[in-house]
Amino acid sequence: MPGIGPRTAQRLALHLLRQPEERIKAFANALLNARNQVGQCQQCFHLTEGNECEICLNQNRQRNLICVVADSRDLLALERTREYKGLYHVLGGLISPMDGIGPELLNISPLVKRITSEETTEVILALTPSVEGDTTSLYLAKLLNAFVKVTRIAYGLPVGSELEYADEVTLARALEGRRTVE
Amino acid sequence: MPGIGPRTAQRLALHLLRQPEERIKAFANALLNARNQVGQCQQCFHLTEGNECEICLNQNRQRNLICVVADSRDLLALERTREYKGLYHVLGGLISPMDGIGPELLNISPLVKRITSEETTEVILALTPSVEGDTTSLYLAKLLNAFVKVTRIAYGLPVGSELEYADEVTLARALEGRRTVE
Repeated sequence: MPGIGPRTAQRLALHLLRQPEERIKAFANALLNARNQVGQCQQCFHLTEGNECEICLNQNRQRNLICVVADSRDLLALERTREYKGLYHVLGGLISPMDGIGPELLNISPLVKRITSEETTEVILALTPSVEGDTTSLYLAKLLNAFVKVTRIAYGLPVGSELEYADEVTLARALEGRRTVE
Repeated sequence: MPGIGPRTAQRLALHLLRQPEERIKAFANALLNARNQVGQCQQCFHLTEGNECEICLNQNRQRNLICVVADSRDLLALERTREYKGLYHVLGGLISPMDGIGPELLNISPLVKRITSEETTEVILALTPSVEGDTTSLYLAKLLNAFVKVTRIAYGLPVGSELEYADEVTLARALEGRRTVE
């Protein structure tokens, strides 16, 4: 399991062996239930227990905005900002020719279907600033620009950081992405 | 001295005491010379040994662009990107009412003089994304917008970072600062 090395694994295993049988049964059942009941939202591919996730079902969200993220963890990070009120679309990864991941392995055609059939006015690409993220952003922008306004989140200096300690690539991006102040 | 604690100070002092007298004399002279000869550029307030700094004297730089930074360290960080070809203006700090630093203590009126007398077409504010940086950016934007186009560097996700681990404020800024992808 990610982040768990041999020593932690041994500690956890020994801890579980010391528990009463009832607790272990309940734990095993909870794992099985989670595995069986949690699926993907038919709309946005976020994790959900039903057919559609809470965000897609929530009628108070702005339904004309779709924010595209690589996976559910990124979606949850954006939700923590409490700033974004639109819908999401989870790609299930990023285009990465090195790892043999092409666009056809991601949830891209359902995204095109959503955009052409729903009242979407803007697609916000919220992908990590990496080779894979940039490739995927460019691919999606080319694909979707015919149907809808495509934007991407800003890359630049993180809040609270020092200009002096920023790496060259980030500073160059921040300069390149400068915007007019009114 | 910044970044030097008592133990490092002791190690450095003992090292210096072990050097031959000639070397110490040369070191002391170098320090005195640096103190006496390094001053501020009359144009941009960057460090220089002459009246004007190398950047202001360089006729190959774009003279219509002025990038405003808090201090010379930030200027050097931007130079390391090798992306920026314009001129600079070093404020000598940021507006900080808490520390009693008002606009009159910074090199702001020489900046206004430069903009109104030179062929400047754009002022880029490259200040840290902090309360003081934002305050100073807003102050300068208000002051300079009458004369020239004012932009500021992008705040958002640093290159190579993971969206998942970005703090809420940075993510919110990145969302707010999103730009159209063509």
